[in-house]
Amino acid sequence: MDIKIVKNSNPKVKPDQNNLGFGNYFTDHMFIMDYTKGIGWHDPRVAPYGPLELDPSAMVFHYAQETFEGLKAYKAVDGSIQLFRVRDNLKRLNISNDRVCIPQIDEKMMFEAIKTLIEVDKDWIPSAPGTSLYVRPFVIATDPYLGVRPAGTYKFMVILSPVGAYYKEGLNPTKIYVEDKYVRAVPGGIGFAKTGGNYAASLKAQVEANEKGYSQVLWLDGKERKYIEEVGTSNAFFKIEGKVYTAPLEGSILSGITRDSAIRLMKDWGYEVIEQRMTIQELKDLYEEGKLEEAFATGTAAVISPIGTLGWNGEDMVINESRIGALSQKLYDAITSIQYGKDEDKFDWVTKI
Amino acid sequence: MDIKIVKNSNPKVKPDQNNLGFGNYFTDHMFIMDYTKGIGWHDPRVAPYGPLELDPSAMVFHYAQETFEGLKAYKAVDGSIQLFRVRDNLKRLNISNDRVCIPQIDEKMMFEAIKTLIEVDKDWIPSAPGTSLYVRPFVIATDPYLGVRPAGTYKFMVILSPVGAYYKEGLNPTKIYVEDKYVRAVPGGIGFAKTGGNYAASLKAQVEANEKGYSQVLWLDGKERKYIEEVGTSNAFFKIEGKVYTAPLEGSILSGITRDSAIRLMKDWGYEVIEQRMTIQELKDLYEEGKLEEAFATGTAAVISPIGTLGWNGEDMVINESRIGALSQKLYDAITSIQYGKDEDKFDWVTKI
Ligand SMILES: Cc1ncc(COP(=O)(O)O)c(C=O)c1O
Ligand SMILES: Cc1ncc(COP(=O)(O)O)c(C=O)c1O
Repeated sequence: MDIKIVKNSNPKVKPDQNNLGFGNYFTDHMFIMDYTKGIGWHDPRVAPYGPLELDPSAMVFHYAQETFEGLKAYKAVDGSIQLFRVRDNLKRLNISNDRVCIPQIDEKMMFEAIKTLIEVDKDWIPSAPGTSLYVRPFVIATDPYLGVRPAGTYKFMVILSPVGAYYKEGLNPTKIYVEDKYVRAVPGGIGFAKTGGNYAASLKAQVEANEKGYSQVLWLDGKERKYIEEVGTSNAFFKIEGKVYTAPLEGSILSGITRDSAIRLMKDWGYEVIEQRMTIQELKDLYEEGKLEEAFATGTAAVISPIGTLGWNGEDMVINESRIGALSQKLYDAITSIQYGKDEDKFDWVTKI
Repeated sequence: MDIKIVKNSNPKVKPDQNNLGFGNYFTDHMFIMDYTKGIGWHDPRVAPYGPLELDPSAMVFHYAQETFEGLKAYKAVDGSIQLFRVRDNLKRLNISNDRVCIPQIDEKMMFEAIKTLIEVDKDWIPSAPGTSLYVRPFVIATDPYLGVRPAGTYKFMVILSPVGAYYKEGLNPTKIYVEDKYVRAVPGGIGFAKTGGNYAASLKAQVEANEKGYSQVLWLDGKERKYIEEVGTSNAFFKIEGKVYTAPLEGSILSGITRDSAIRLMKDWGYEVIEQRMTIQELKDLYEEGKLEEAFATGTAAVISPIGTLGWNGEDMVINESRIGALSQKLYDAITSIQYGKDEDKFDWVTKI
């Protein structure tokens, strides 16, 4: 693939590495590639970061034919740049694309795009502890047309955002609200895809949970409204009498890459990990019996996020005295050590660029 | 409301009124109004139709925080311009906005926006039989930010598209596929809102139905996958032994304005209209017994679309010998006669501008 590079002649001043937050700052360049029906993907290029010009009738504005991914590049302890499980993210982007009728994109081509863009903007990768460069590949439908049908033109883009340490002072357990009014997804729908509609659908529950003093929601299944699914933009795990439970992949939740990393590490450490449906009532009963030892969520942004409180039916379950559990901490340390190149990459998760 | 108007100094050549199709052409102007958290909606303006400039991180591209409406303006037989049920569309836009956490927009303000824009572009309203000016109000979230939360900035816009007669030679019955693999929506979700995610979710089923020779899908409910919901971008009705059945509004289907117009007209004509859940098996049984007399879909684009064939479980039900039924034709004639000002507007559906 021949990627044309046009350098930004007006580079920005880089933000303070200690106050990056998440998704606030963008680097000096972006990657763009166009799709035209009958031609395929064409014109891969790195261009100065700047506004997109789109017709107001562009289909993405009306019918949300759009997909995205999120992964991170790390400045490793040896000074090299490492991507974590990039191939899995690119494979998942094509799974999402398929669900909403966006044409497949060659995964090697996407990898080249990300690699080239990061090389151009490598000075933007922060090095302060816990920081990284968030990589956001995404696809949007651009036909200037108001009928409902898959578009014939798309843009695949990659933008980069230096992001801060998610936890400033250790891993802080969160308060999660068990959502019983709104539904995020149902088998047969788009829940397993990273496509905008799932996120728009989640906003109202999140806002109402925030108003009640919780930071996120735990979704229940959309059919019977009792099986535990996932938490906001992360997957949920529960340690019960030494065994670890998480929801199976049945089409309504995202197949999280951190979920998979956590499962593989725990199995490697000898834990029994059970991917099985569990109702919120079962969890509550186990909690009452003192058998719920730890709860945590997994996702690219925070890696591991301990769940300190689960609010359901007007009552709060306080888990492990709202302190981080030993397994949550061990997983966080193990995954981040691989991400920053402090530990051996025995699962072949890292790609140096 | 003080709407600033900047005229387009480069008006386009208008398209042939006999080959407009749907949503292909746009007029010379558009309406835009911005929202900023803490300020509210501001800067209402009519500007030359042209591309939007948005940051690639704009939230609409990633999380589909977007809503829209669709209604039509007609050149009436007395030469005046008429909007059909515009206030109902604007009310529904705010219902959609609420579901995806977009701030409410004053309905009078939106009406002024539409009226002003149509006045500026009034020469674009086609007058050939069956043609109209499609009005597309929409809202998009524009924050340049990658976190998942409701945006703090939005654009409300209106664009106009002259559209053709949906049926060139009389009302053509369609072939509809009963979808049993994919799900569009479920109660607690976003199915009742006109927001992009529902449409992205529907594309794959539509494409697969097209490949099987059907033009659209009939959705079944997402929980039990047996109750009849709606058809593509329209609501479904079935005339059975003289009575008319349609799915109730329980959160998973759109509250169609044409659906409501049809119900009110039919009740006015003395029909019993029953909003009640019906399984596809029940419908099939009634069909086998020869009791299914007519089936049709209602929506702004086609008004009334007779359903000639329903494909389910590998078999086709051919309804009314795939000819348009008397009730479907009567509804089409009645609604379009009001829309074009040929008939008295006894329900107060029309707004002259
Ligand atoms: C809905 C949802 N679930 C789970 C996850 C966690 O997935 P991953 O570990 O791949 O980041 C994410 C975030 O990517 C998400 O958006
Ligand atoms: C999903 C869906 N159902 C039904 C309808 C019909 O609604 P209306 O009659 O208001 O056009 C539409 C189109 O607007 C739609 O998009």
